[in-house]
Amino acid sequence: MCQLMGMSANVPTDARFSFTGLVERAGRTDIHKDGWGITFYQGKGVQEFRDLKAGSDCDVANFLKRQCIKSDIVISHIRQANVGALTLENTHPFRRELWGENWTFAHNGQLKDIHSILPLGRFIPIGTTDSEHIFCWLLHQIEQAFPTRPADPTKLYDFIYAKRQQLHEFDVCNFLLSDGHALIAHCSNNLHWVTRRAPFGPALLKDVEVSVDFSQETTPNDVVTVLATQPLTTNETWEKMQPGQMVVFVAGELIKQYE
Amino acid sequence: MCQLMGMSANVPTDARFSFTGLVERAGRTDIHKDGWGITFYQGKGVQEFRDLKAGSDCDVANFLKRQCIKSDIVISHIRQANVGALTLENTHPFRRELWGENWTFAHNGQLKDIHSILPLGRFIPIGTTDSEHIFCWLLHQIEQAFPTRPADPTKLYDFIYAKRQQLHEFDVCNFLLSDGHALIAHCSNNLHWVTRRAPFGPALLKDVEVSVDFSQETTPNDVVTVLATQPLTTNETWEKMQPGQMVVFVAGELIKQYE
Repeated sequence: MCQLMGMSANVPTDARFSFTGLVERAGRTDIHKDGWGITFYQGKGVQEFRDLKAGSDCDVANFLKRQCIKSDIVISHIRQANVGALTLENTHPFRRELWGENWTFAHNGQLKDIHSILPLGRFIPIGTTDSEHIFCWLLHQIEQAFPTRPADPTKLYDFIYAKRQQLHEFDVCNFLLSDGHALIAHCSNNLHWVTRRAPFGPALLKDVEVSVDFSQETTPNDVVTVLATQPLTTNETWEKMQPGQMVVFVAGELIKQYE
Repeated sequence: MCQLMGMSANVPTDARFSFTGLVERAGRTDIHKDGWGITFYQGKGVQEFRDLKAGSDCDVANFLKRQCIKSDIVISHIRQANVGALTLENTHPFRRELWGENWTFAHNGQLKDIHSILPLGRFIPIGTTDSEHIFCWLLHQIEQAFPTRPADPTKLYDFIYAKRQQLHEFDVCNFLLSDGHALIAHCSNNLHWVTRRAPFGPALLKDVEVSVDFSQETTPNDVVTVLATQPLTTNETWEKMQPGQMVVFVAGELIKQYE
């Protein structure tokens, strides 16, 4: 199994605090030490970082804990390998281009023998994980339904919700997905989120003794949502997602919730 | 215009020395300061790093100068923006999946109004550079000719050589391209390469006072080729590519040369 972290914000926002908590679980407070990755959107473009080392003891991850990268949408993943060898191509998040946009996907769960059940189209997995297979299948389904981006994004979200039902019925499949516009999260069994807005206050990480006073880091108009497999902080109220639920965040705000 | 750097090796090899020389040209010894990027292949997977800051004065680039990442194939680029804004999606190298493989492309040159001349297929540019347009066009051409990877890779190289003729006739187009197996380089006007093999000796960078004694860093069987727009070292003999020439390196060795 693995753990996920995501962020959606209405201003480019530094995700170091959440990332610092997450990677503690990559070998120190938890066992997800088989590589990690993080994708930062800045508009249509992305910066991505990944490594095969345990996130809790990795030069690249340590560098990112010190580096302020401001981003609109973030998707991060720490891996405990079950399907697929410990290789870079099996490290999440996965990325593909559709409609001239960067799509990013990270997954927590296990969908054994999915390869024979979900047919692929033009998106072919580079690695051997069930996760990348799901992503490639889903993008193909989206493209078949929408050869170009639909003018009404709700149609896209509705379609993704309908399609992820197959995954949900099959086995454990928590995922984060983004096209650079929205951050979409589906919960099979473990996913939480919290939205921070004014008045901002202090937050304390659960996995390491680090705190931040967001009132010093933000403006009154900032809205920032963080998602994680398990809550990252101890003094905030995280919303626990229900099995089968899918949520869509744009610019930090929950714009659509599917039960 | 921009500058390119590439590496092909028969053992996973540290490219820091070449990268250190290259990024000096990103704002210090030369003017290519509009972002930079580097893609490291490890088998089928990649690690990539990019940033919008000048490579000569960038935290991520400085980190990479200290970080040993061993790789089979490297493609790097420092940009001087002409077509396309200073955004991450316009930063080279570009990457797409074809046949379940990571394809990477970086380009130096300018092909004005190429958008109306080279028709696109399913690969759509995310940014607005002529370079990404060329890459998307070329991948579409390759896929149309070879729906799956040809058993004989020479057919693929021959096809790429035939196709890049259109680019070469059009305007300045130096590029580096990889599918994770080979490193392919085309020269319009500026591209050089050097192959290092036993007996290894010292090398001195041209742009900054840094030297390395490769005999201390290698085994007698290592073969490493480095390509760059302009030679990166002062005490080695770099091969100057001729206009229209295309070379293919696999595991550090020149396996095919097109005049």
